[in-house]
Amino acid sequence: MSMISVTEAVALLRNSARVLVGNEIIDLKACAGRVLASDIISAINVPPADNSAMDGYALRVEDWNGPDHALEISQRVTAGTAPLALIAGTAARIFTGAEIPAGADVVVMQEKCKADGPSVLIEVMREVGGNIRPKGQDIMRGATVLKTGHRLRAQDLGLIASLGIARVEVRRRLKVAIISTGAELVEPGEEAKPGQIYNSNRYMLEALIEKWGFEVVDFGITLDEPDIIRDVMAQASREADAIITTGGVSVGEEDHVKAVVESLGSIDFWRIAIKPGKPFAFGDVQGTPFLGLPGNPVSALVTALIIARPFLFDCQGASHADVIPVRQISLFDRKGGGRQVYHRIRSGVGGAEIFAQQSSGALYSSCWGDGLAVQKIDEDISKGDLIEVIPYVLFN
Amino acid sequence: MSMISVTEAVALLRNSARVLVGNEIIDLKACAGRVLASDIISAINVPPADNSAMDGYALRVEDWNGPDHALEISQRVTAGTAPLALIAGTAARIFTGAEIPAGADVVVMQEKCKADGPSVLIEVMREVGGNIRPKGQDIMRGATVLKTGHRLRAQDLGLIASLGIARVEVRRRLKVAIISTGAELVEPGEEAKPGQIYNSNRYMLEALIEKWGFEVVDFGITLDEPDIIRDVMAQASREADAIITTGGVSVGEEDHVKAVVESLGSIDFWRIAIKPGKPFAFGDVQGTPFLGLPGNPVSALVTALIIARPFLFDCQGASHADVIPVRQISLFDRKGGGRQVYHRIRSGVGGAEIFAQQSSGALYSSCWGDGLAVQKIDEDISKGDLIEVIPYVLFN
Repeated sequence: MSMISVTEAVALLRNSARVLVGNEIIDLKACAGRVLASDIISAINVPPADNSAMDGYALRVEDWNGPDHALEISQRVTAGTAPLALIAGTAARIFTGAEIPAGADVVVMQEKCKADGPSVLIEVMREVGGNIRPKGQDIMRGATVLKTGHRLRAQDLGLIASLGIARVEVRRRLKVAIISTGAELVEPGEEAKPGQIYNSNRYMLEALIEKWGFEVVDFGITLDEPDIIRDVMAQASREADAIITTGGVSVGEEDHVKAVVESLGSIDFWRIAIKPGKPFAFGDVQGTPFLGLPGNPVSALVTALIIARPFLFDCQGASHADVIPVRQISLFDRKGGGRQVYHRIRSGVGGAEIFAQQSSGALYSSCWGDGLAVQKIDEDISKGDLIEVIPYVLFN
Repeated sequence: MSMISVTEAVALLRNSARVLVGNEIIDLKACAGRVLASDIISAINVPPADNSAMDGYALRVEDWNGPDHALEISQRVTAGTAPLALIAGTAARIFTGAEIPAGADVVVMQEKCKADGPSVLIEVMREVGGNIRPKGQDIMRGATVLKTGHRLRAQDLGLIASLGIARVEVRRRLKVAIISTGAELVEPGEEAKPGQIYNSNRYMLEALIEKWGFEVVDFGITLDEPDIIRDVMAQASREADAIITTGGVSVGEEDHVKAVVESLGSIDFWRIAIKPGKPFAFGDVQGTPFLGLPGNPVSALVTALIIARPFLFDCQGASHADVIPVRQISLFDRKGGGRQVYHRIRSGVGGAEIFAQQSSGALYSSCWGDGLAVQKIDEDISKGDLIEVIPYVLFN
């Protein structure tokens, strides 16, 4: 395969994606970050009845005979109580949020009224409907308020609660197997012998997978030996909906992932015009999608965010795969080249500052900053240019 | 108190904040979203030793005598194994990430070499240090890589792992009590009788509190009766580090929160020039900070994000209180007024579109869109203006 652009790579991957999870019905309280499996349709009007926007007095406009004519206070309506129908020619004391008594067509705020024992003087009258929030103003019964595929935020939970819905049909969480390969890897907390390095991709990827609302199926470090890789891959294909590996997919003599995945399914090596991000492999293990990310931590991070994330969101049935960059002033110069570059940057008042050492091994570059600057192929960036930046939080 | 600006309100609140939580040491795997309680200092060099950036051959530059003079291949170094010192006048087969043998000072990529049984021809030589990633290039031993107060993201976990650190000192999670008051409230799933509405703030606020990495202490709906409110408040002050209520802090006759908090500590009603967002109260219950948010869901959301969040982050000891708006083209006209307005907007290719119904009761407005547009006091917004927008994800 010749070199393909990032856009083409993402489109190709997403074309092959389909929703890989079933549905479940869970308590609203547990729904934060989950993905709707059916539309939320309101069974009620919000507000459910006309209600008062003010503390004041509810009456009928035509019953008002000027500021000097007192009206009897015939009832007192607080939020949460059902009012009686308004007795003609009287006013009802009413509080914010309380239901308007049948027959009343206006609320006058208390600052314009003078209560005197059992009656009230109303100084200024408003038009019919004044200070009344009509029923269904916010949401009409039968309206679709949230759509299948929506990933639920705090305010969405509030909205669903406001409709009286306590249990929600959501997608099951996508199960993603994380497999780190590489003979040189040891776990943090263990002793790293000469030639060994600590496994960082596992912790990073698992945190991403969980942040995205998926479920991690953790295989830890797998020795770079064909039989072991084969066993782990086969197990992962049974237990997970998608498999992510890091390392082991270069053309080096010591990489066995390729042969194993080939024998259990299929694997393609993609030459994506992305930097950092080489090498990337896609295929399947006994029908389960397989994404082979680079072993270098920054390459693994960038390909996870840019290439893998949209595909996985599609597999989860979540409609939030797209990330729209923001624009910022560049504080750096960089010549363009043959690949789309994702520079690790930090945003300040003046603009986006670049981390000096953009080596793909230097994970620190991604921790120092708060986002990625996108440099397109053959596009030169000069100080002062308005460039595309993706704050890391947009990938959440 | 006369009307104060949003900026003043936030500054006043934050001035009164102090870190309210102790520390604990937990497994790195559980650290996503947690806040560092001490600096992360590297005890190692990263990479730990000079290593190869390529698959190829390692040798000493001065041992090369041109493309026609073969060098003996004296060893084979793979990632994760400790190399022997290089025998003078020979080359070592080496792979990406593998440690450079002592004595070698260059790596030539395999594409520029021709192996022939036990020896190799090297076509082109590079300068000393070529294709070698020096030890400590990314991180020098003793360097501070992450600071106290930092909230840990996926890549930070990866970085900490890469230093071999398996357990991390973090802040204990801030415990935040959520108390909903209002006689008109019922829980979703229950039957709403006439005059009653569903409690939405509880679900929304709890999701926010958890998203921010805090721990919810859930008190559900508290009846709007002095004795009950007093018991719940006193209990909350013992069990939580901070207390948030929604509703019950207007000047209406039916609000008892004010008297209770006053009797157990202190309460101030703040007239903040914010819309939506009235009324807001701040004080303490037996020494525990108390934030009284409005009962209207949109007002509760906006004050939670804009006013409460920075204060709570400070109480957690997290250094991420500030949110920096992005700039977008306005697709709407709005006259300015006496308060700073947070419009619910949706971002599209052309700019920021406003939700037509900006009533503080209409939570749907916050679900329809993806952020808030900030309109300063007396600032008119016209179509085409570059305005300040805060995507909701920036509050995460």
